[in-house]
Amino acid sequence: MCVACDYTIHGNQHHFGWNHDFEPALVMQPGKSVHLECVDSSGGQIDGNSTVASVAALDFSKVNPISGPIYVEGAEPGDALKITLHHFEPSGLGWTANIPGFGLLADHFNEPGLHVWKYDTASMAPALYGPGGRVPLKPFVGTIGVAMADPGLHSVVPPRRVGGNLDIRDLAAGTTLYLPVEVEGALLSMGDTHAAQGDGEVCGTAIESQMNIDATIELVKHARLASPRFTTPGPVTRHLDGAGYEVTTGIGPDLMTAARESVLRMVDLLGKERSLAPLDAYMLCSVCGDLRISEIVDMPNWVVSFYFPRIVFE
Amino acid sequence: MCVACDYTIHGNQHHFGWNHDFEPALVMQPGKSVHLECVDSSGGQIDGNSTVASVAALDFSKVNPISGPIYVEGAEPGDALKITLHHFEPSGLGWTANIPGFGLLADHFNEPGLHVWKYDTASMAPALYGPGGRVPLKPFVGTIGVAMADPGLHSVVPPRRVGGNLDIRDLAAGTTLYLPVEVEGALLSMGDTHAAQGDGEVCGTAIESQMNIDATIELVKHARLASPRFTTPGPVTRHLDGAGYEVTTGIGPDLMTAARESVLRMVDLLGKERSLAPLDAYMLCSVCGDLRISEIVDMPNWVVSFYFPRIVFE
Repeated sequence: MCVACDYTIHGNQHHFGWNHDFEPALVMQPGKSVHLECVDSSGGQIDGNSTVASVAALDFSKVNPISGPIYVEGAEPGDALKITLHHFEPSGLGWTANIPGFGLLADHFNEPGLHVWKYDTASMAPALYGPGGRVPLKPFVGTIGVAMADPGLHSVVPPRRVGGNLDIRDLAAGTTLYLPVEVEGALLSMGDTHAAQGDGEVCGTAIESQMNIDATIELVKHARLASPRFTTPGPVTRHLDGAGYEVTTGIGPDLMTAARESVLRMVDLLGKERSLAPLDAYMLCSVCGDLRISEIVDMPNWVVSFYFPRIVFE
Repeated sequence: MCVACDYTIHGNQHHFGWNHDFEPALVMQPGKSVHLECVDSSGGQIDGNSTVASVAALDFSKVNPISGPIYVEGAEPGDALKITLHHFEPSGLGWTANIPGFGLLADHFNEPGLHVWKYDTASMAPALYGPGGRVPLKPFVGTIGVAMADPGLHSVVPPRRVGGNLDIRDLAAGTTLYLPVEVEGALLSMGDTHAAQGDGEVCGTAIESQMNIDATIELVKHARLASPRFTTPGPVTRHLDGAGYEVTTGIGPDLMTAARESVLRMVDLLGKERSLAPLDAYMLCSVCGDLRISEIVDMPNWVVSFYFPRIVFE
C-alpha cells in the first residue's frame, strides 16, 4: 500500500490487450499519484510450485494482464502523459521461461524451460540462478502504455508508438516516462513487472515477478511526441557492471542476424566457461545480458555486441 | 614511447586496407608486448587548422591507415590472438566530421560538418563541444584486426569476422580482445584511435584522435572462434553515466528503421532542450550517445533506444 498516493488500482482491475473502448478503472486529475496492484505476466498461471509442464500448458488468452485503464482528465490527442515511477513493491517470487515459438533464438530452443526465482525483498540481494550465478535485481515495469486511436482490440504483445509492452529495463524507480496521447483521457495501463532483465530480453521473458507500483501522472499539453521517451535520474547499470563484462559479437549487414549470432556465441561461451546447458545459458542471458549496437555506419557491416556481466559469477 | 615494450611499430609502418600478401612490419613471438605509433583516421588530412572544406576535400584513398601488420610466430588458422590493450597515449587533438554519404542519417544530413576538439592529455577532463556540452573521454582503438584468408585487397571500411573497423568503444585500456586467425602469422594491424564514441558511432565518426598504443599479444591455439570477443576488467560507462540519461525510442519491425528513428528523435530533443543545430546535435550524439536494443522479442515490433548521457550538459 502507498501511504502518500491519491488513488489505488486494485489487482482485479486489469484487462487483456488494448482497446480505447475499455471502461476506465479510474478517472483522475493530472498531478496526482496512484498505487497500482499489478498481476504477474502469466496472470497467475505460473507460481512457486510450477514446473516446466506449466509453461507448455500456458493459456495465452490470460497472458500479460495490465492494470487500468486510468482516464486522465484533460488529456487530449497530441498531449503527452508524464509518468514518474516512484516505487516498486516486489513480491519476492519470480519466474523465467522459454516459451516454444517465442524469443530471439526460438528456432534453436524449441523445448519449454522454466526457472523459478526466490529473492529477498528487503535486501534485494542478487538472486541465485539454480544452474549457477547470482543475478543483480532492478525492478521495473515491462508494459506501460496508453490506448491507441485505432479502434478495436489490439494484442498486448507488440509495443507501439503509444508504448505498451516496451520491456525497457530502465523504466525503474526514479525514471520519468513520456507517452504520446492518442485518445481523450489517454487511458493509461501498466503491468508485466520484472525483477531484472537485460537489454533485448533475448529469450522472451525476464525475471517475471508480481509487484505493485507507485507513480505520479502529469499532463504535458501539445507535446507532439512521436514515440515514448524517458529520463533516468542516475546511472542505469551500476548494480551489475562492477566486475566488467564478457562480450561476444555478431558482424554483418543485417542487425537481426548479427544480434542472433552475438547471443548464440555467448550461449556457447557460457557453456564452455561455466558449464551451463545451452537452454540455461540462454535464459540467464535474457535476465542480465545486454544487446548493444556497437557500430551501425561502417558499410555494409554492422556490429551488434552482447554484454554479459561478469559479476553474475563472482 | 613504451618503457616496457619489446617492440615498436613506427608511424610510417602503416597500410591501407587488408591483404594477406602485405609484408609484415614485424615478426614477433607470442607473449611479447608492442608499442604501436598510429596515424589518425584521416591519415593526417585533418588537423587543428582544418575547416569544413577539409572534409569535402578528403582523399578517401588515404583514409584509415592502420599500423602493422604484425606476424605472430606460431599462429595458424583456427587459433586466436589474445590482445591485451594496456595503455593509450593520446595526442590531445581530435576531430569529428559529418562526411556526406556516410553515417546512419546520411539522407538527412548531406552537408559536410567538422568539429575540432582539443583536450588535456594529463587530466583527460571532459572535452568542450563548441555548440554546447562537455564530453567525457575514454580512448580506444577503432580498427583492430587480422588478415583474412580471402586473397586480394579488402576495403578497411567494413568490419568482418576477423575484426577490422569494429568501432567498439570498449576496446579501451584494460580490455582483452580475442580475434580469430585465418592465415599463418595472423598479420595483426590496428589504428583509427578514438578519444570518445557512443555505441553506434551514429554520424560515422567518433572523436578521431591520433594515439599510440601499448599491447601484449598472446596466442590461443585451436580456439575456433567465430568472431571477435572481448573481456572488460571493470565497468564501461562510469565516465559518463553519473547524471543519468535522456532516452528516445524507435519502435517497429525493422531494427535499422527503429535505430534511425531513435536518433532522429534525440536530434529533435537536443534541438528543443539545448538549442543545438541539427547537425551539431547529430555529431554530438555520435561521440557520446548509445544505441541499445531494449527488446527484440515482442513480435512483430522491436524497441531500439538511444541513450544520451545528461552529464554532457551538467
